[in-house]
Amino acid sequence: MSNSLIIENAIVITLTEKGILDPGYVLVEGDVITNIREEPFDDELKSKVNRVIDAKRNYLLPGFINTHTHAGMSLFRSYADDMALMDWLENKIWPAEANLSDESVYWGSLLSIVEMIRTGTTSFADMYFYMDSVAKAVKETGIRASLSRGMIGFKGEESLYEAKEFISTWNNEADGRITCMLAPHAPYTCPTSFLEKSIEISEELKVPIHIHVSETEGETSDSIKEYGKSPVIYLNDIGVFDRPTLAAHCVHLDDNDLEVLSKKKVSVSHNIGSNLKLGSGIAPIDKMLEKDVNVSLGTDGPSSNNNLDLLEEARTASLIQKGFHKNPTLLEAETVLKMATSEGAKSLKLNKLGKISPGYKADLILVDKNSPDMYPKHNPIANIIYSCNSQNISTVIVDGKVLMKDKEFLHLDLEKIYHEANKHAKEIINA
Amino acid sequence: MSNSLIIENAIVITLTEKGILDPGYVLVEGDVITNIREEPFDDELKSKVNRVIDAKRNYLLPGFINTHTHAGMSLFRSYADDMALMDWLENKIWPAEANLSDESVYWGSLLSIVEMIRTGTTSFADMYFYMDSVAKAVKETGIRASLSRGMIGFKGEESLYEAKEFISTWNNEADGRITCMLAPHAPYTCPTSFLEKSIEISEELKVPIHIHVSETEGETSDSIKEYGKSPVIYLNDIGVFDRPTLAAHCVHLDDNDLEVLSKKKVSVSHNIGSNLKLGSGIAPIDKMLEKDVNVSLGTDGPSSNNNLDLLEEARTASLIQKGFHKNPTLLEAETVLKMATSEGAKSLKLNKLGKISPGYKADLILVDKNSPDMYPKHNPIANIIYSCNSQNISTVIVDGKVLMKDKEFLHLDLEKIYHEANKHAKEIINA
Repeated sequence: MSNSLIIENAIVITLTEKGILDPGYVLVEGDVITNIREEPFDDELKSKVNRVIDAKRNYLLPGFINTHTHAGMSLFRSYADDMALMDWLENKIWPAEANLSDESVYWGSLLSIVEMIRTGTTSFADMYFYMDSVAKAVKETGIRASLSRGMIGFKGEESLYEAKEFISTWNNEADGRITCMLAPHAPYTCPTSFLEKSIEISEELKVPIHIHVSETEGETSDSIKEYGKSPVIYLNDIGVFDRPTLAAHCVHLDDNDLEVLSKKKVSVSHNIGSNLKLGSGIAPIDKMLEKDVNVSLGTDGPSSNNNLDLLEEARTASLIQKGFHKNPTLLEAETVLKMATSEGAKSLKLNKLGKISPGYKADLILVDKNSPDMYPKHNPIANIIYSCNSQNISTVIVDGKVLMKDKEFLHLDLEKIYHEANKHAKEIINA
Repeated sequence: MSNSLIIENAIVITLTEKGILDPGYVLVEGDVITNIREEPFDDELKSKVNRVIDAKRNYLLPGFINTHTHAGMSLFRSYADDMALMDWLENKIWPAEANLSDESVYWGSLLSIVEMIRTGTTSFADMYFYMDSVAKAVKETGIRASLSRGMIGFKGEESLYEAKEFISTWNNEADGRITCMLAPHAPYTCPTSFLEKSIEISEELKVPIHIHVSETEGETSDSIKEYGKSPVIYLNDIGVFDRPTLAAHCVHLDDNDLEVLSKKKVSVSHNIGSNLKLGSGIAPIDKMLEKDVNVSLGTDGPSSNNNLDLLEEARTASLIQKGFHKNPTLLEAETVLKMATSEGAKSLKLNKLGKISPGYKADLILVDKNSPDMYPKHNPIANIIYSCNSQNISTVIVDGKVLMKDKEFLHLDLEKIYHEANKHAKEIINA
């Protein structure tokens, strides 16, 4: 059996109706989970597979899915913090971004991918420039990603052609690990005609749309001034939400907006770390869940977060809704774990991802349960979400391939990635 | 030179006017830092000290100070989550606490101390029952602590005698690592006469007061109903704040309350993780800092947090103020780092603690800077606060003694502590 794998003795958190298997036994063939059960596999099968992982110190979970980031921005991590948004963008980030290149975005993306794998993320949705470099980094590292060229429509239509070319080159490449979306950056950076063309191309190329929506108060009030309606209503009225859409942020929403997101089955990427750090506000996740909106988690770029740690986002997302609404029953542990996994798969419009079940992609993580914050053993999901942190993640498998085992990367030269990313980051900022 | 230590080649974050030494060299003799400089020590001195730690992969910081917890409550971690406060207390925590014993609190406290050392905490302020067990655990593990017997005044005055005896037994014990406070639990659990006696005893025994203040809205409105004034004004009027006081929580405060905390130099332990998770609300830390109130960080008990990770508290404290007040310039990275260290020392009323400077206690931590979230190297303090997590902490020194080196505990039997704590936790809950 080529490229096959058994994971045995883990406590398996399936996120399906099977619940938790304690212990469970999982068979992976190729890139797919083919069997999951409560009885050990027999020795004959074990002798035939390529690898048997004894995971008795671990929980086994679906890998985390980060549904909104700008991986190349790791180059600007901790370069500028504690600043007002426009001061930060105009005086720090935009001038630095003007110095980016294919090469620097490649190393920045590699650094981000290493961090994501280290912290248990097996898929991410990226929107940035120099996307061929990002795709190359995804292909080489073995992670899964939904990639899109971020298009600032007010700069002209060239980016639309670039995006089309990017999609035709990379969609479903790297054994299908790379999929694409079309990403008009935001309603306030793209004219209506540009958004309408984006809708057409998205339909023609059969890719979803990835867009920033209602991140700040100012953006929302500007939209009302200019169009007489909120960004959500405006985007819906011009037809964007007739396409499958991943909407990042969605912080400032009224009841009509919520109704539209629900009715049009728009996926929301909740970016709580970035929203807090940039002072953007707190998204009404409680109300979105009441209306059955698909809510997943994103980190946003690592220069506004300042990391790519999805487990931290999950914990923070839960705590913020409880604390802000003074209601500790909101966003319970299992809810945010699903937001980080199975709901993330829905946001990426990928089927058969984000759960541990036969036929699902073998994107899996092991979480070490032998640290002080993991005792006592009253409730595994609460321990994972509320107590431990991402460095408990010990092993990461994507598409059936082991990328990190017992906290060691099997294929990547980390020292070189750290060195090159640091060098490019310094050069860009000093240019 | 007996019990002496050199730490060389680290980037030293002193939190003094010396700023950051890159690299720096630190000499520890006995329990005290005796020299800190930018030049290496000579070989003669290096040959005389007991140990030389080459820390070139690390940042060196003062250890974290957790100014409010109930360590024994690790036994109830993840036992009951996502519940309304009174439901959680009345139906889960209080019945379980009734089954506690000297032995179970001992093992629960050991588990918590292991977690605190692992996550870089070198001192903590504890308020609980069976405090002899906590003191024994502190003495054996080598951590520093300010301990107090939590007294529910409405249950009678016996706890006052117990507290007096505890203080006379343990204050300044364990080479001075243990100090004590007197802890009437809260204004709503202690009658006025009990609080007045507490003031007297605190004066007589020369120990500070540790008390819960204005944690919930209900507590504050009840105080206004009963005494015609807020908990802060009430406590001040009866004289509590004439004693050095550590006030935990302080979530619901008006301007008069803030004025009193500032004028009376009351130390505030900000417990943001617990306040969010229990839905208690968000403390006005921005206003406290404007008024120069001494604000430090606490985790509260691990069953309402659900961990003892002070670095996570620091990050969350900063992000929440920024996000809640929509102002990203609030609580910058260095401010919350000081809240976790030097401001914590002030809250514990301990001099010469919480900075790296000659004459200060040698409570020090090394933070590994060779992980993906620590690159690029634009700003060490932002990387530590906003990006990495507590598992980057590699080495922990308390009172000049190395307790954890390169993530390995040197003196403690972790497997036994995990096993015993888990066993006692299950027994208590099933009793």
